[in-house]
Amino acid sequence: MNVNPTMAILGRRLRLAVIGGGPGSFIGSMHRLAARLDDQYELVAGVMSSDPQRALAAAKEIGLPEDRRYATVAEMLSSERRRQDGADVVAIMTPNDSHFDNAMAALEHGFDVICDKPMTNTVEEAQALHQKATEEQRVFCLTHNYSGYPMTRQARAMVLAGEVGEIRLVQVEYVQGGKADESKPDPTSGPRSWTFDPARNGLSLILGAIGSHAHHLVRFITNLEITEVCAEAGAVVPGRKFDDYTGALLRLMNGARGVFWVTQAAAGVENCLQIRVSGSKGTLEWRQEVPQRLSFRPLGAPAQTRTPNGPGTLDLAKRASRIVAGHPEGFPEGFANIYKDAAEVIASRIAGLDPDPLALHFPTSADGLAGMLFIEAVIRSSRNNSSWEKVFP
Amino acid sequence: MNVNPTMAILGRRLRLAVIGGGPGSFIGSMHRLAARLDDQYELVAGVMSSDPQRALAAAKEIGLPEDRRYATVAEMLSSERRRQDGADVVAIMTPNDSHFDNAMAALEHGFDVICDKPMTNTVEEAQALHQKATEEQRVFCLTHNYSGYPMTRQARAMVLAGEVGEIRLVQVEYVQGGKADESKPDPTSGPRSWTFDPARNGLSLILGAIGSHAHHLVRFITNLEITEVCAEAGAVVPGRKFDDYTGALLRLMNGARGVFWVTQAAAGVENCLQIRVSGSKGTLEWRQEVPQRLSFRPLGAPAQTRTPNGPGTLDLAKRASRIVAGHPEGFPEGFANIYKDAAEVIASRIAGLDPDPLALHFPTSADGLAGMLFIEAVIRSSRNNSSWEKVFP
Amino acid sequence: MNVNPTMAILGRRLRLAVIGGGPGSFIGSMHRLAARLDDQYELVAGVMSSDPQRALAAAKEIGLPEDRRYATVAEMLSSERRRQDGADVVAIMTPNDSHFDNAMAALEHGFDVICDKPMTNTVEEAQALHQKATEEQRVFCLTHNYSGYPMTRQARAMVLAGEVGEIRLVQVEYVQGGKADESKPDPTSGPRSWTFDPARNGLSLILGAIGSHAHHLVRFITNLEITEVCAEAGAVVPGRKFDDYTGALLRLMNGARGVFWVTQAAAGVENCLQIRVSGSKGTLEWRQEVPQRLSFRPLGAPAQTRTPNGPGTLDLAKRASRIVAGHPEGFPEGFANIYKDAAEVIASRIAGLDPDPLALHFPTSADGLAGMLFIEAVIRSSRNNSSWEKVFP
Amino acid sequence: MNVNPTMAILGRRLRLAVIGGGPGSFIGSMHRLAARLDDQYELVAGVMSSDPQRALAAAKEIGLPEDRRYATVAEMLSSERRRQDGADVVAIMTPNDSHFDNAMAALEHGFDVICDKPMTNTVEEAQALHQKATEEQRVFCLTHNYSGYPMTRQARAMVLAGEVGEIRLVQVEYVQGGKADESKPDPTSGPRSWTFDPARNGLSLILGAIGSHAHHLVRFITNLEITEVCAEAGAVVPGRKFDDYTGALLRLMNGARGVFWVTQAAAGVENCLQIRVSGSKGTLEWRQEVPQRLSFRPLGAPAQTRTPNGPGTLDLAKRASRIVAGHPEGFPEGFANIYKDAAEVIASRIAGLDPDPLALHFPTSADGLAGMLFIEAVIRSSRNNSSWEKVFP
Repeated sequence: MNVNPTMAILGRRLRLAVIGGGPGSFIGSMHRLAARLDDQYELVAGVMSSDPQRALAAAKEIGLPEDRRYATVAEMLSSERRRQDGADVVAIMTPNDSHFDNAMAALEHGFDVICDKPMTNTVEEAQALHQKATEEQRVFCLTHNYSGYPMTRQARAMVLAGEVGEIRLVQVEYVQGGKADESKPDPTSGPRSWTFDPARNGLSLILGAIGSHAHHLVRFITNLEITEVCAEAGAVVPGRKFDDYTGALLRLMNGARGVFWVTQAAAGVENCLQIRVSGSKGTLEWRQEVPQRLSFRPLGAPAQTRTPNGPGTLDLAKRASRIVAGHPEGFPEGFANIYKDAAEVIASRIAGLDPDPLALHFPTSADGLAGMLFIEAVIRSSRNNSSWEKVFP
Repeated sequence: MNVNPTMAILGRRLRLAVIGGGPGSFIGSMHRLAARLDDQYELVAGVMSSDPQRALAAAKEIGLPEDRRYATVAEMLSSERRRQDGADVVAIMTPNDSHFDNAMAALEHGFDVICDKPMTNTVEEAQALHQKATEEQRVFCLTHNYSGYPMTRQARAMVLAGEVGEIRLVQVEYVQGGKADESKPDPTSGPRSWTFDPARNGLSLILGAIGSHAHHLVRFITNLEITEVCAEAGAVVPGRKFDDYTGALLRLMNGARGVFWVTQAAAGVENCLQIRVSGSKGTLEWRQEVPQRLSFRPLGAPAQTRTPNGPGTLDLAKRASRIVAGHPEGFPEGFANIYKDAAEVIASRIAGLDPDPLALHFPTSADGLAGMLFIEAVIRSSRNNSSWEKVFP
Repeated sequence: MNVNPTMAILGRRLRLAVIGGGPGSFIGSMHRLAARLDDQYELVAGVMSSDPQRALAAAKEIGLPEDRRYATVAEMLSSERRRQDGADVVAIMTPNDSHFDNAMAALEHGFDVICDKPMTNTVEEAQALHQKATEEQRVFCLTHNYSGYPMTRQARAMVLAGEVGEIRLVQVEYVQGGKADESKPDPTSGPRSWTFDPARNGLSLILGAIGSHAHHLVRFITNLEITEVCAEAGAVVPGRKFDDYTGALLRLMNGARGVFWVTQAAAGVENCLQIRVSGSKGTLEWRQEVPQRLSFRPLGAPAQTRTPNGPGTLDLAKRASRIVAGHPEGFPEGFANIYKDAAEVIASRIAGLDPDPLALHFPTSADGLAGMLFIEAVIRSSRNNSSWEKVFP
Repeated sequence: MNVNPTMAILGRRLRLAVIGGGPGSFIGSMHRLAARLDDQYELVAGVMSSDPQRALAAAKEIGLPEDRRYATVAEMLSSERRRQDGADVVAIMTPNDSHFDNAMAALEHGFDVICDKPMTNTVEEAQALHQKATEEQRVFCLTHNYSGYPMTRQARAMVLAGEVGEIRLVQVEYVQGGKADESKPDPTSGPRSWTFDPARNGLSLILGAIGSHAHHLVRFITNLEITEVCAEAGAVVPGRKFDDYTGALLRLMNGARGVFWVTQAAAGVENCLQIRVSGSKGTLEWRQEVPQRLSFRPLGAPAQTRTPNGPGTLDLAKRASRIVAGHPEGFPEGFANIYKDAAEVIASRIAGLDPDPLALHFPTSADGLAGMLFIEAVIRSSRNNSSWEKVFP
């Protein structure tokens, strides 16, 4: 029987309140599933929508008790703070433009926070939020879920253990086809039309939606910052009013070089987040569409395929697998690993214990800030005819 | 937001009681995870071990309330039957030799049953259990979880829709390496030594453990019975006292032919359950280790790779995916799909409604009986110098 | 510059005479290409067809000098034997039923022989030919070309070097779709209708055509004989008068077990010859459709993908690659490797030298005889209700 | 029997003279093998080395007749021009810095030319050579061999046929590991030390060696020019004096965008030339290391894997395959396809016939010029802090 760290530490599950994730939200279902998967959270309260009526209806639909179905965030935060059995942690899965307000309010009320990515819509908001989380000494977990897969963790662990050597080269791409259909170049109406509104989604829809994942994955695996970018963002589909691709050359803090490519206009491609990292001792390669495999090509020895819990699995990856080798876990388990580690750290904080250092690899507000700085630098470069721009000015 | 059928039908979750799955049980954790994943079950009671003390300790550890931690199955079944808020369904995840007694007792108390595979240790038990489940008009769900993957369901749906044509050929293999290490040919001591005891595991350890999955997958995808076998079972590792491989030639009810190969002695192989089905219109191929891909090679047209929720996904597969295309689900989700469909059918039964026909593709006691008949025929053939033996005598 | 062993040994190329391979012959073109590829042969003479007129026309078409375009085999063999600059070696690429006569005649005239597979149509012919080749001390090379791929040679070399341990399990399959189209179940007319005539193709069309390759590949990689079979051969396509599948259980000389599956009725499949060999130290896996990769899964260490000339390449595989790693060679090069090694051994024989032992891994008349014995045992078993039959009675 | 176009047109093979390719030359062996493979060339003369003594020795070693083993290019060109049976075509496989002189001399003597890539070391030379080849109306074939693979030809043919729609996005990478070993960052001594000498290899070693292939492949498949680049070239291995990577953003003539990445410092990677092209109707993907597969993902339909001679193969690809589907051809056959088509066009020219338009897809001096313009623009951009530079100023 797998140990449930939160039960072991606190003798109970963490009480979770959610903001967002109501009808039609794919990501809301995923957050709740991730919270449920390892049985460390109990969903106790929620504001499921910005529309109060829909919020209450949705909360009922998922089985929340009547007194903990809330119509507004303010109401929930103060009510849950007052209750003896009030929520421990608030998870935010609203549109990007409300991440900042919701997260700030949750921190102000003393809650630990789990927040969907990108963290905010601007660098300024990201800085303020990061500062607040730091001051309040609360856990701020950002769901860059691709860093939760066993094999991206194995990649990071191999880099940290020196098995890949000094990093020299990085290729990252996040290629999707969801906006390839040119019969509707600019879907400004329809149920998810707000996702195309820069006011709600920040500087760059595509960088917020998928580019931030690619950026985080590079940093997560290499343990290096991207410090300079030379980029172009734009639309390849004629008549389109928002960016559908971004390409960039990368310079990393140790002198490594890289290339970055994201698009949602690649017809027929599903969800191809892919990364290759070469160090002086070997090359790692991982593709989200077959996440249970990590290719490692050591210098001068046969190419290897690593698998979750297979031979050579390092501790950081081991704790991200629930099953023996050969039983593939997927996207939900990767997402859940973020929740799982956050639970262990939050439970430790509540109990006044030092957390297991292996639980501390989930993305935080510091990563959210780095992500916003990257997005701003990319857009700055693109607007300046692809000048080289510093990410940390 | 995904609809939760049980909540929609009953306005509440199903109340689940478990038998088995205590400390050290991989499959127990998986059953509970599967029950939790889609939020249609609430775990309310359990007998976690055949050792009463360990049973109570384990039940506490996973957070069951004190009054519903039981020391014996008999106690739990009668107590839960009496309670106003008693369990709806009993899930059995004990060693094989107690499936029969536990399932029979649960049926006698009027519970729906979810049971780990293989259903029983003998054909006679299987027949009795199947008859009982039929008489009691209770749901009997057998967790042949590999039939829960979106892509095995897609394969079945394509066959049922006629896209593959008349089935002609089947190749199935289930190859593992867990018993390849020859330094310990006969692990008759150690924590899981009971798994090597025929008295507890039935006629054939390997056929019960993995062969029954391969057998079910053939029937699930082709919608055909295997009617005759010509087989050999034995041990390739010298000095081994239990079978570590079984090979068989197959005849299917429509005249199709096939080959069947299972082993746990293939060094370095993880969990390679693989099937290829050729019909008059094309060939399907699926490999459990990359479950999110289904190869389809139509006669006279380019080979295709089907993916969950990708273009061409049929309804039976669609309902087995929780996420948009390109976000791989894994073994836990496949397992959970069995629980998910069972929940919908049980909830319908309780509510006196006809279930959605698409929910009725999970394995039942009829499949469990077919599985035991197959195992007995294979062993009969092997003992009779690989004679052809009828599966349904 | 790669060394040309024949030029190095003899100061000239080997002079090659061909029998068969005229208009419409795929395999004839391949034989000549294979001979040309490494520049060790000079095509000097030919009887290109059993029809004298077509033989002469075809010989002209491929550029043979007028005096060495022959109308009959007898004429060519005696004429070339008499010439000062006469052929050294005769390559036979006729329909199966004439292999025996042509090869026997060539040996009687003192030529070394390269012969297409299967060697003969009966065991008796195979025995006679093997005896003759042995007595005459001539090279008899049988073009089981799949053993010429760098990665099947690497597999064999790893087994011979003990890297795979004692062989325990073998799975081999040769699956094609060429006869899957049920609109023409029995193509007894048309340009290649003779290929369906048992009188010309022997006991089993499918075993001669592809089963013999699968059989040879097992023996080549494992270095073990298959000693007993339990088999069924038949037709799955209704109304078909020749076998379109054969399945068999295998026992190998060291006690290893295996399974064998060949068919030409798998709709949409191209040319899937595939083998998996498990030994006590690891498992090898190779698939002809991606021949440049050999999977090796060592017990207790990460899975490897070996490539031609990649790290860990053994000598037997090295000599089968012409290019640095990462530049895939294909079917023609694999075929040519058989010709290449035969050339080196024939040149050594002519020069009275001992050949390089690494050149001695190409298939010979001994392999051809083993192949015919296997085919006969399979058919015997199938006709005897899948009895176990000894291959070497 | 495959038709031999040169034999069919001229009644004889083309007579080939080679410059370069002596001892130790991988590419020389490949050129001669490619010429031999389809039996359309007869090697008649050669200057095998710039060292006269080695030239004569090597020519003897490969079997050239004594009177056609030449010590100098000048001698060979004039002698072969005078002979009745003199060479038709001159193939150049010398170091890059002598391509220009040798090719110019061959053209001046009226020969058709086959030349290794990159065509020259400077744009000026490329322009002069292209002009000369055009004026002389001779065939100038440049061996960008990756465009000879059946599946890159299929990709081009699908684009030309409109199956991919309007091109929107291109990703190309050529990643190798040959210079990843940091124990020897700067191999300025040793047998191939000249390959690191810019005087002999032009502006950019890596762009000449592999970048020019990547550039040509983009143009070949998309049928579009790359018109602007924003690039960085440099060395990631500390202490290295030559470039070991180049990254670039691309703008294509129709507004499509792309990314370009080449390196030889990716430890453990063999020869990963890879391209993905997205058009409005679908996405193509091809990887040189598994060249027999072309992925095509049509918008809104299941992903396909195309194979040589498999269903849907277009004429341009069909003529590039020698075998039925499922029998992989490799790098040598792809290389030979360039020679094969050149032969057909040269034979037609000699015979005064119009060549088959399908034979006219091999790279020419126009492609060589485009390649040099690209390399110069990339280096200009890199030296100008990654400014956007026009390729055709």
